Amino acid sequence: MLSKNQQKYLRQLGQKKYRKQHQEFLVQGTKNVLELLQSEHPVAQLFASDAFIAQHRSLITSRLNARDIHEADETELCKVSTLVTNNDAIAVAPMAHTEIVPTPWQLALDGVGDPGNLGTIIRLADWYGFEHVLLSANCADPYNPKVISATMGSFTRVTCQEVNLPEYLSQANKPIYGAFLGGENLHSTNFSEQGILVMGSESHGISEAVAEHITQRITIMGYGGAESLNVAIASGIILDNIKRCRG
Amino acid sequence: MLSKNQQKYLRQLGQKKYRKQHQEFLVQGTKNVLELLQSEHPVAQLFASDAFIAQHRSLITSRLNARDIHEADETELCKVSTLVTNNDAIAVAPMAHTEIVPTPWQLALDGVGDPGNLGTIIRLADWYGFEHVLLSANCADPYNPKVISATMGSFTRVTCQEVNLPEYLSQANKPIYGAFLGGENLHSTNFSEQGILVMGSESHGISEAVAEHITQRITIMGYGGAESLNVAIASGIILDNIKRCRG
Repeated sequence: MLSKNQQKYLRQLGQKKYRKQHQEFLVQGTKNVLELLQSEHPVAQLFASDAFIAQHRSLITSRLNARDIHEADETELCKVSTLVTNNDAIAVAPMAHTEIVPTPWQLALDGVGDPGNLGTIIRLADWYGFEHVLLSANCADPYNPKVISATMGSFTRVTCQEVNLPEYLSQANKPIYGAFLGGENLHSTNFSEQGILVMGSESHGISEAVAEHITQRITIMGYGGAESLNVAIASGIILDNIKRCRG
Repeated sequence: MLSKNQQKYLRQLGQKKYRKQHQEFLVQGTKNVLELLQSEHPVAQLFASDAFIAQHRSLITSRLNARDIHEADETELCKVSTLVTNNDAIAVAPMAHTEIVPTPWQLALDGVGDPGNLGTIIRLADWYGFEHVLLSANCADPYNPKVISATMGSFTRVTCQEVNLPEYLSQANKPIYGAFLGGENLHSTNFSEQGILVMGSESHGISEAVAEHITQRITIMGYGGAESLNVAIASGIILDNIKRCRG
């Protein structure tokens, strides 16, 4: 049974303003909650059905004190969740504040505002071994519940950092690749040993302020009639090409 | 002003049963309606705001008789639309019944049930010049409004055909590639001159009945912690590799 205060708190974490205030965020749905419990990411509280708690008892008790484990039925969880289905568990986790150490290759997003796309790109970054993603200020909030859901657990392994992207790039001192129409064919691009890949927003592409710092414009060759690709799809294709080239 | 009958008909086309009965489907939102009008795909009726009609008058009148062009305000269109926003135009189009002539390379989907994923894959097929997509019976309906929206206009250039997939593959007589975990590294796969790429459902992968016919199992190499990739992302990466190999 959830108290009024608990309900209010969980609902608040659906909004960016309160996430920022409390420095905590929601993790919803079986897969994501299990990934969180199995990860090294800290976890503050768990609200879950009896069945979920019974099934994963040893994992849960290894990560949480009894006072932070709360039984609730699915109807109750549904009321405070931002998901429509899959409401047998909701966790509250503190935001990570890891200092980001630049790796040879980095991924930066310029104005990717759709939470589903951002979450999918975080999952892709995880697949291709990119430990962090740099975000311009106008990207979706990486702690938005829709972003967390779309990462399918990758939020526990990939850290997002909001940066002033033009400023960051101006000091980067390595090749900066950007996806544009009319750039160099991706299939013949010889990616250097280190670099930054910048992906722009689906509707406007890479902003002018960021474009100034791009040193190599690359293009995914099209063979048919479609005008563009979804930004998450394009990110996947380019990351795959970078890995093919640089391993 | 939409009549009661028009409202009812448009609402009906949100459901597969009625689409099948009437052999027509909805095309919603500015971008998709314009793509339809500019394409060779037939169009039966248009319901749009005054502004939309005024702005695209010559295009609209080149494609439709006056009696099939209906003015309606956005509030009215919103009521019959399955979209939340972007409701200045809704078109009704007859289903295409093109006979599919096999091209050297084909894309087949086995149980891709999410309309957004299916639409995104149709857009990808269009980008990479695949003119049709074969669908197993348990895929999402390609005329579902969410599929049409996600194609971003590619539904006008790519034809989907429902087939008995195991039967189709058993008679294909060319290499059949399937995405599996633990298959050959995609980056070292030498794709043949012709073939069929099969992508499975996100939750269950390729079904057993279809797997029997796969002659080459391929895998997108992962370098990080993510367990899997979204099926649309994976399709994009594999299609890009086929095109790199076969042009």
